Amino acid sequence: MAVITIVGAGMMGTAMCWPAADNGHTVRLVGTPLDAKIIAAIKATRIHPRLERAIPDGVCAYPAAELAAALDGADLVISGVSSFGVDWFGQTVGPLLASANSQSAGRALPPVISVTKGLVDLPDGELITLPDALRPMLPAAIRAQASLNAIGGPCIAHELAARRHTAVVFTGRERPVLERIRSLLGTPYYHPWLSTDLTGVEVCAAMKNAYALGVGLAVGQMEAAGPDGLAHLYNPQAALFGQACYEMRRLLPITGGGEDNAAWLPGAGDLYVTVFGGRTVALGKLLGGGMSFAQARAKLSGVTLESVEIIKRVTRALPKLAARRRADLADFPLLLHLQEIIQEGRPVDIPWDAFFANI
Amino acid sequence: MAVITIVGAGMMGTAMCWPAADNGHTVRLVGTPLDAKIIAAIKATRIHPRLERAIPDGVCAYPAAELAAALDGADLVISGVSSFGVDWFGQTVGPLLASANSQSAGRALPPVISVTKGLVDLPDGELITLPDALRPMLPAAIRAQASLNAIGGPCIAHELAARRHTAVVFTGRERPVLERIRSLLGTPYYHPWLSTDLTGVEVCAAMKNAYALGVGLAVGQMEAAGPDGLAHLYNPQAALFGQACYEMRRLLPITGGGEDNAAWLPGAGDLYVTVFGGRTVALGKLLGGGMSFAQARAKLSGVTLESVEIIKRVTRALPKLAARRRADLADFPLLLHLQEIIQEGRPVDIPWDAFFANI
Repeated sequence: MAVITIVGAGMMGTAMCWPAADNGHTVRLVGTPLDAKIIAAIKATRIHPRLERAIPDGVCAYPAAELAAALDGADLVISGVSSFGVDWFGQTVGPLLASANSQSAGRALPPVISVTKGLVDLPDGELITLPDALRPMLPAAIRAQASLNAIGGPCIAHELAARRHTAVVFTGRERPVLERIRSLLGTPYYHPWLSTDLTGVEVCAAMKNAYALGVGLAVGQMEAAGPDGLAHLYNPQAALFGQACYEMRRLLPITGGGEDNAAWLPGAGDLYVTVFGGRTVALGKLLGGGMSFAQARAKLSGVTLESVEIIKRVTRALPKLAARRRADLADFPLLLHLQEIIQEGRPVDIPWDAFFANI
Repeated sequence: MAVITIVGAGMMGTAMCWPAADNGHTVRLVGTPLDAKIIAAIKATRIHPRLERAIPDGVCAYPAAELAAALDGADLVISGVSSFGVDWFGQTVGPLLASANSQSAGRALPPVISVTKGLVDLPDGELITLPDALRPMLPAAIRAQASLNAIGGPCIAHELAARRHTAVVFTGRERPVLERIRSLLGTPYYHPWLSTDLTGVEVCAAMKNAYALGVGLAVGQMEAAGPDGLAHLYNPQAALFGQACYEMRRLLPITGGGEDNAAWLPGAGDLYVTVFGGRTVALGKLLGGGMSFAQARAKLSGVTLESVEIIKRVTRALPKLAARRRADLADFPLLLHLQEIIQEGRPVDIPWDAFFANI
């Protein structure tokens, strides 16, 4: 049995307790400084306040101040921080990984696998994955050999915590490490597929938040319009869904993702599940229903909107990237319209006839 | 303005009246012998009994006995027959197309575009599209030059008839013909994309019915299980959705579909929309809820289930096809499980760990 330390006690990080604990491992759930109330609640009641469910027996909860103890002897570190917490992870967890490594002679550095979704745009226009953004933040002593992996694919945290069948993608550049992590975390209900196309999987995992917002526009239009006889508004949603898959596919060669579709297939399922719930689709529905972005943003105040951040980052990078890789910006009318809505305050006006420009 | 004759007064064929009539064409809607009650109802009330909506002003309805008159001088023929009506179309409409052609000296044979979804498996194991199955049934005089096209992509008939935004794919082997048909039928709400990958588009258009049944299994399991706290059962649906996209993609090279994903992208949207409604998902939900196929079939008696037929046909062809094209049958665990459920009466037992075998 292994020691598995989960850093970040949000919903998704915490949900990873279930497969880890069901496999008999020692599981330590550590809050970030933003998770103080969650850890206090768990210590008092065992119940995670947002999952509304007791964490599995035997899982120990640690406040951020006890991070070093929680990481001591870990065989696997799961990062459950949000996309805004990657810097913190590098600066705070990184040195502890390095010292744990040097203190335990002969002990391998534990691999890290992250549930965080996002991309970072560099000043030169390149888009990189969060594991690739994390690496330079690590201490020099472990920067080269750290194994930084990620989890993509469709997974609603509530359902994983209810032990409902969930199929995800473990991705990283070393297949033996992925196989080892799967042996630690795979259960009869948690089904990890493996892909070494880290960039492709992570591009789709991040972009599905942007495109779920896009599909949400049509969901909001449907709710605002109401039925007309037996007609609803599923056709527009489906057209946006297809265009979203098209644009995700077209982003892969531009960003350095693999061309074999390994990344993208779970991405379609991921987009499907994201459309059914959560904050991203809620924003899209408000916009589709007629609110301006400013109005919708105010209505959802206090909610972290990773979709908005990813749209800003990717559309900031896209012109340079497209020019460098000889890609056609006309392949991305939906993403560019989302940017107009969010950054220029434009009303929703789906560019139907620009879709599928190059099939 | 042109003369457009729609053969088959089912929901989808009839819904094509709207874009055709809105463009100012002369539109003739002809029933098959199975549509006698529908045509009688339209003649009496203008209302299509299943669409529950009056057909557009100016559209003339014809019974099957007046097929020759309805086809006279047609510039475009839209086939709205079901997949079981292709033989009838070839034997009955084919000779009339040929005679209309020979009677009007110098007049071009009108192109045919079909809304019918399906595939035909030949004795040697090849799977062919319905346009390719239709061609040998046509009279020898027009067999070579007939232009046989099809419409794929996500389109719920009720929504098209309500003039809601709908994006589809017109597919055929001659791009100028597709452009001409788009010029006849495209409207501000009906958005046809064009693809010359007829086989690929038609494989996805047909298979989405099979796979919507597959996703429906998880919808039925969700409804039977009910919520567990805040957890529903969207993760399993999403995994099945992703696997369905994977299997559709893997079928393309085996069946002769194009590899450029043009076909498959609308297929993802098409699967999305099919999951939201209709007969196919209803069957999947009953099976996922615990009924045997025999029980579910009895409950849906009288309903035409094209999904069942396509699963039978494709799984009958698949072993020979896979052997001939050196494909891996392990790429199709969901389709093969659907076949077991339908033809061997097996209970639903999703083969999770066989998914994404070759990513």
